[in-house]
Amino acid sequence: MSLLVLKFGGTSVGDIERIKNAAAKVAAEVKLGHKVAVVVSAMAGVTDQLINYCRSITPHHDPREQDAVVSTGEMVTAGLMAIALQQRGLNARSWHGWQVPLRTDSSHTKARIMEFNADALRQRVMDGEIAVMAGFQGVTADGSISTLGRGGSDTSAVALAIAVKAERCDIYTDVDGVYTSDPRIVAKARKMPRIAYEEMLELASLGAKVLQTRSVELAMRYRMPIQVLSTFANAIGSELPGTLVTEGNEIMEQNTVTGLAHTKDEAKITLVKVADRPGIAAAVFVPLAQANIIVDMIVQTAADEEQTTDMTFTVSRNDLERTKKILESERQKINYKNLLADSGVTKVSLVGVGMKSHAGVAATMFKTLAEKGINIQVIETSEISTSVLISEEYTELALRALHTAYGLDAQ
Amino acid sequence: MSLLVLKFGGTSVGDIERIKNAAAKVAAEVKLGHKVAVVVSAMAGVTDQLINYCRSITPHHDPREQDAVVSTGEMVTAGLMAIALQQRGLNARSWHGWQVPLRTDSSHTKARIMEFNADALRQRVMDGEIAVMAGFQGVTADGSISTLGRGGSDTSAVALAIAVKAERCDIYTDVDGVYTSDPRIVAKARKMPRIAYEEMLELASLGAKVLQTRSVELAMRYRMPIQVLSTFANAIGSELPGTLVTEGNEIMEQNTVTGLAHTKDEAKITLVKVADRPGIAAAVFVPLAQANIIVDMIVQTAADEEQTTDMTFTVSRNDLERTKKILESERQKINYKNLLADSGVTKVSLVGVGMKSHAGVAATMFKTLAEKGINIQVIETSEISTSVLISEEYTELALRALHTAYGLDAQ
Repeated sequence: MSLLVLKFGGTSVGDIERIKNAAAKVAAEVKLGHKVAVVVSAMAGVTDQLINYCRSITPHHDPREQDAVVSTGEMVTAGLMAIALQQRGLNARSWHGWQVPLRTDSSHTKARIMEFNADALRQRVMDGEIAVMAGFQGVTADGSISTLGRGGSDTSAVALAIAVKAERCDIYTDVDGVYTSDPRIVAKARKMPRIAYEEMLELASLGAKVLQTRSVELAMRYRMPIQVLSTFANAIGSELPGTLVTEGNEIMEQNTVTGLAHTKDEAKITLVKVADRPGIAAAVFVPLAQANIIVDMIVQTAADEEQTTDMTFTVSRNDLERTKKILESERQKINYKNLLADSGVTKVSLVGVGMKSHAGVAATMFKTLAEKGINIQVIETSEISTSVLISEEYTELALRALHTAYGLDAQ
Repeated sequence: MSLLVLKFGGTSVGDIERIKNAAAKVAAEVKLGHKVAVVVSAMAGVTDQLINYCRSITPHHDPREQDAVVSTGEMVTAGLMAIALQQRGLNARSWHGWQVPLRTDSSHTKARIMEFNADALRQRVMDGEIAVMAGFQGVTADGSISTLGRGGSDTSAVALAIAVKAERCDIYTDVDGVYTSDPRIVAKARKMPRIAYEEMLELASLGAKVLQTRSVELAMRYRMPIQVLSTFANAIGSELPGTLVTEGNEIMEQNTVTGLAHTKDEAKITLVKVADRPGIAAAVFVPLAQANIIVDMIVQTAADEEQTTDMTFTVSRNDLERTKKILESERQKINYKNLLADSGVTKVSLVGVGMKSHAGVAATMFKTLAEKGINIQVIETSEISTSVLISEEYTELALRALHTAYGLDAQ
């Protein structure tokens, strides 16, 4: 007998029938002899609707009040899930964040977990109650409701799993696991049976939307295994039907490159003919940082004979207009000849812990893309990933070619 | 300067525009120099939707979980109202029931208020904060969320007014006051400037839906004046534009009959030729009481030569089928010849504290109805009301004739 935390995302509890279906998954785990705690998201679409209500009064609304409004979505699902479990004859009870309590700091709409003592909840679960916790939310020191940021229910689930000393945290979603690449684009993409925390973290930050980055960080820090699986497809009871996110050294078969991620969320800015002098990078990036704009990839060309250089970097597409505005207002100070902006770009990334110890991994990428006539605009590397920025129109071609080149294709 | 509690019902906060409109009413009171606390209902339709979610999983769902689900409707409105007030530059903050806290017993879905210490909230309001409390909800001793029953936000508002020692509780709704009769039926109905607690209580229990009965009881016990007024029509700032519910002796001009109520929620049952023996009433009504069926009007004819009697009474229309089933199963024991059921009836009531000290009030009613050829099926009286049961088709005719006969018509 072991204790599991099962988390159901918005599409998995999108309507009453789906909530009943999710309850059936929980019941199946109970029947196998597991003790179970459940974490639920809001029904699909509800969070957006509630945020839109706040925005339609004023875009500059109080984050404390947004949290008080938006957290209700998960409360509704938690109560309905408890009812659906009770209807199956199970002992279930819903818990809002403040009732557990899950204590956070007071950074409303993006709160961090400060303290999560779930001993009492663990005892109830060990005594046979299925505790259903509303995800995404906590309570601040002054008794206000807080939320953990978009996708925060994944973090709630991992935090609960750690707090109740669960054996594993199962994240039920609308895909049946983590794939070597996006299966909607790369038909030969394979579901990975296992993936290391570090790899999952890179994939999540580089565009794979299957898990919230913070939840993977938390799981990695406390070594809590996560299984990603589908509410709609995977059979319960079969041995780990989804993808297990776990320690790297537990993964036997290890390719150099584990998976490919891509994102179209970035836009490229080039400042043409900037004077190549000390302090120029600060002149460009300090005003952006002050405006809370995150700069991702940065590349600077070698200075020409006029001692000027081209500086290229990427920002989130949502921030493109603000970025342009700020740089235009700083034009005198920075002293550039021209500003070019391009939102028609895709960032494609290779991820794999094996890259640490293998030479020539990036070379294969450059060669493969060159053979297909795809121009690389910017390159960025980390210890276990290599990313390139390419023109958006080549996205599918690049992903499929790289997937084959790194031996990831399904047999 | 005085402290007011303003309560907005479901239609008054039915969408974002209406929430903004309600916020404008609050702002106008603040501008007049009042300190203000606000209580809000769920947006119109939301409570029904949430209850339907629970029911669609199972009609026999856990009342604790229903409360956890349904209470979220008022939480959403409270947050949105706080945002709408802040948008006007006011200092506002939302409060869920558990945050104040409003403590109740553990009778989920129909909890009673046990303790309501709002001293801290009063201090915040006196310091200039507009406290926006989610209506309808409280928290039990074990930390679960409870709700006060249908229409419970009226009770929340009156309880808050008492707890913060407000001068008055203004209930904003979709009618601009309490009328001498239903203005959709009686064109000459007049809005009353003032009405006594006792009269309002009778009107509310006899079918006038403008205030929840419990809220009027509470206001009467603590002598808290309530004003009923419209979010859509009444001008702010004019002297008490709605109807003030207050002490009887504060009302100067007093008709014998203050208003007419009517309800089509009742159904009539007649047991024909019941043996007229001791214990027969118990044989009929004890099984109904055990099934939680409330019996309203009761009349029994004099015994005939066979020592049998006809027994007529009314129950809620919703309970009619259950009532028939129970009485049929008890037929042997009760020993009646026939059971007649009629849901085509209306109960029409006269209400007025003046009836205590005036003779002949009921006689005018009987004479007026007789002149119009309307048969009275059952009569019931209380100290300040007289009710008759008539055939449903005569509802409008009876109301208009009685309205004129008692001198209630507008000039």
